[in-house]
Amino acid sequence: RASPAAMLTATTFPTTNCGGSVRCWSIPDSSITSLTTTPSSLTIRSRRASRSHPVRAMIEKERAETQRPDTFLRETDDNSSGDVRASFEKMIREAQDSVCSAIEAVDGGGKFKEDVWSRPGGGGGISRVLQDGAVWEKAGVNVSVVYGVMPPEAYRAATANGNAKPGPVPFFAAGISSVLHPKNPFAPTLHFNYRYFETDAAKVMVTPCQYYTDAPGAPRDWWFGGGTDLTPAYIFEEDVKHFHSVQKSACDKFDPSFYPRFKKWCDDYFYIKHRDERRGLGGIFFDDLNDYDQQMLLSFATECAGSVVAAYIPIIERRKDTPFTDQHKAWQQLRRGRYVEFNLVYDRGTTFGLKTGGRIESILVSLPLTARWEYDHHDALGMQQPEEGSEEWKLLDACINPKEWV
Amino acid sequence: RASPAAMLTATTFPTTNCGGSVRCWSIPDSSITSLTTTPSSLTIRSRRASRSHPVRAMIEKERAETQRPDTFLRETDDNSSGDVRASFEKMIREAQDSVCSAIEAVDGGGKFKEDVWSRPGGGGGISRVLQDGAVWEKAGVNVSVVYGVMPPEAYRAATANGNAKPGPVPFFAAGISSVLHPKNPFAPTLHFNYRYFETDAAKVMVTPCQYYTDAPGAPRDWWFGGGTDLTPAYIFEEDVKHFHSVQKSACDKFDPSFYPRFKKWCDDYFYIKHRDERRGLGGIFFDDLNDYDQQMLLSFATECAGSVVAAYIPIIERRKDTPFTDQHKAWQQLRRGRYVEFNLVYDRGTTFGLKTGGRIESILVSLPLTARWEYDHHDALGMQQPEEGSEEWKLLDACINPKEWV
Repeated sequence: RASPAAMLTATTFPTTNCGGSVRCWSIPDSSITSLTTTPSSLTIRSRRASRSHPVRAMIEKERAETQRPDTFLRETDDNSSGDVRASFEKMIREAQDSVCSAIEAVDGGGKFKEDVWSRPGGGGGISRVLQDGAVWEKAGVNVSVVYGVMPPEAYRAATANGNAKPGPVPFFAAGISSVLHPKNPFAPTLHFNYRYFETDAAKVMVTPCQYYTDAPGAPRDWWFGGGTDLTPAYIFEEDVKHFHSVQKSACDKFDPSFYPRFKKWCDDYFYIKHRDERRGLGGIFFDDLNDYDQQMLLSFATECAGSVVAAYIPIIERRKDTPFTDQHKAWQQLRRGRYVEFNLVYDRGTTFGLKTGGRIESILVSLPLTARWEYDHHDALGMQQPEEGSEEWKLLDACINPKEWV
Repeated sequence: RASPAAMLTATTFPTTNCGGSVRCWSIPDSSITSLTTTPSSLTIRSRRASRSHPVRAMIEKERAETQRPDTFLRETDDNSSGDVRASFEKMIREAQDSVCSAIEAVDGGGKFKEDVWSRPGGGGGISRVLQDGAVWEKAGVNVSVVYGVMPPEAYRAATANGNAKPGPVPFFAAGISSVLHPKNPFAPTLHFNYRYFETDAAKVMVTPCQYYTDAPGAPRDWWFGGGTDLTPAYIFEEDVKHFHSVQKSACDKFDPSFYPRFKKWCDDYFYIKHRDERRGLGGIFFDDLNDYDQQMLLSFATECAGSVVAAYIPIIERRKDTPFTDQHKAWQQLRRGRYVEFNLVYDRGTTFGLKTGGRIESILVSLPLTARWEYDHHDALGMQQPEEGSEEWKLLDACINPKEWV
């Protein structure tokens, strides 16, 4: 879940040099931390990552809003691309509403608290967090819309015009992101995130006049990314099969290759290298997806986001009141520690978000309310290995050796 | 607290090419994560750091020992450098014993559990952890000794001999590292770490004979690093002044410039950039220290490590039984979350240790037993800001604006 946009906008690039549609400096909010670049700008990602002291971002400060606007889109968004932007924003806001309603209904006690925020140059978001509910310890569901610019080097703009030098590349990003941590150790944590990214035509500077114009032949680009994954502390095969079969059904409506591809991508991404284990039992994960019809992918993302409630809530209904011991709770807390390790050490969105600035509370809303790191003396040489055959061992084994669940 | 040695040894470099004293592949254990290079090898640090996928280290696996050996040094260590190596190992093992004894005496309930380990090619360590004691939630005190080699590019070896090409640079490292997390929210966490690093003469390959010999004129290098710092959840001025004045006294015995320099270095190092605050209230921190007499610096490190008990234990005696509320505990857990954030996101030793391999349990023994991340709704735009003037605010203010305590 790379956030190169966060990196890219982190370079100081004077706004006064920017053309009409590049009005603000901004950085993607954490709710869309999973943005990634197209292959054409991958070079940037590694170049920026090589700096040991990333340039501090010039970020337009977000401001609190007292109510939800109808849209976070700029009025000036043109209609051609505006259609997908508007549809995607509508989709993620509806998904936020339906997931939050379902969570509150099952929780019975807790209520989501909402923060609405915007940036003067356009874009904004809605953060919702339910904390210390009856069923969930911490549940966050965020949506956001971001307008920004990539610095000139970020993009191989068409520079056929000998009088032009590359200028800024405006981008648009929107996404929904959620992490749901229940209290009961038998009830699994869920994470999902769906995002849409667009770049405008690159700008070029026309010399000697020193103004920016669209680079001739510069591509407008777009792509989708996202995924839904499950992180239990204990395995109930029935639950994991149900969860994966909902993911597979959503995928199969669009392309039979999606589920196997995105299931493996998920297992590969949520890998805690220093433990040689996955964070959880996976699901689906995809990124840079643009080699299909744009409307088809919009429908696919909509289907996936719309499947969250059906994939997750029945599992919670079954497990939320299961009696448990202190040992079960301690194991859950240890697995929560792994969740923190993955997010703080490996998750590209989180680490870049932290290092380049952004809305810290939103970035770290993915962390569990509580976690625990116990030093295991008994296995003198490291691995905190539960006894073979135990329930804890079964979970760990499935995190080390990803299984086919459907 | 960089651990370039961990990086350096992470490059595949065939042992069969190595000269006599380079017998094994190894990686510094976490207890000396704070090693850093001399200026002459700084270039390496950034080169390796630029790789998004660090090469997996070939690490000689450590093995458990049933009893503590008299020394972890190789028998073949020559006497000239062996003196400082032996003195330093003796010092850190004595410091480990005295700190652990003091902790057990004050705790009354908990006992340290010990793991002794070694590597076949030389080196090893003693890990001691006390968990869930009466006073301390988690207390770890580790010593280790590491022999390794840096790959040829790591070092600007003298290559005046036209027939020679640069070969491996053997290094030696030894250190003590400790983190002590008490239960009572009014009793502060302490961290300290002292380390000594040496490089042998670089080897060069003599062609066409294809064997390695000492590079003519290649420097043997050495340096010291370390520090002691305090991380309370609540400020008692009396405690912080006491702690800093012990650090200052230790420094002033050697050089009046030490305390102000190392105090500032500490404030700068333990900086959580994304929060714009320090992890705690500092102390002293130094690295790459070799521009003084070697015996003087050995005495200085000895003095510092020997001051830990006097700096810390009286504070614990005063605070360990202070009555506290759930709110006090929650604030402590939130500050523990910051501790985890610093260690997993910024601490160079931890992050490199995790990414290049090493003894995970030792690397992460610095993490608190429990931590908590609460999303603060009330301040809609981020900062989890306690009420101005409150005790929590005073702590935060001192973490944001480091103070002069003595």
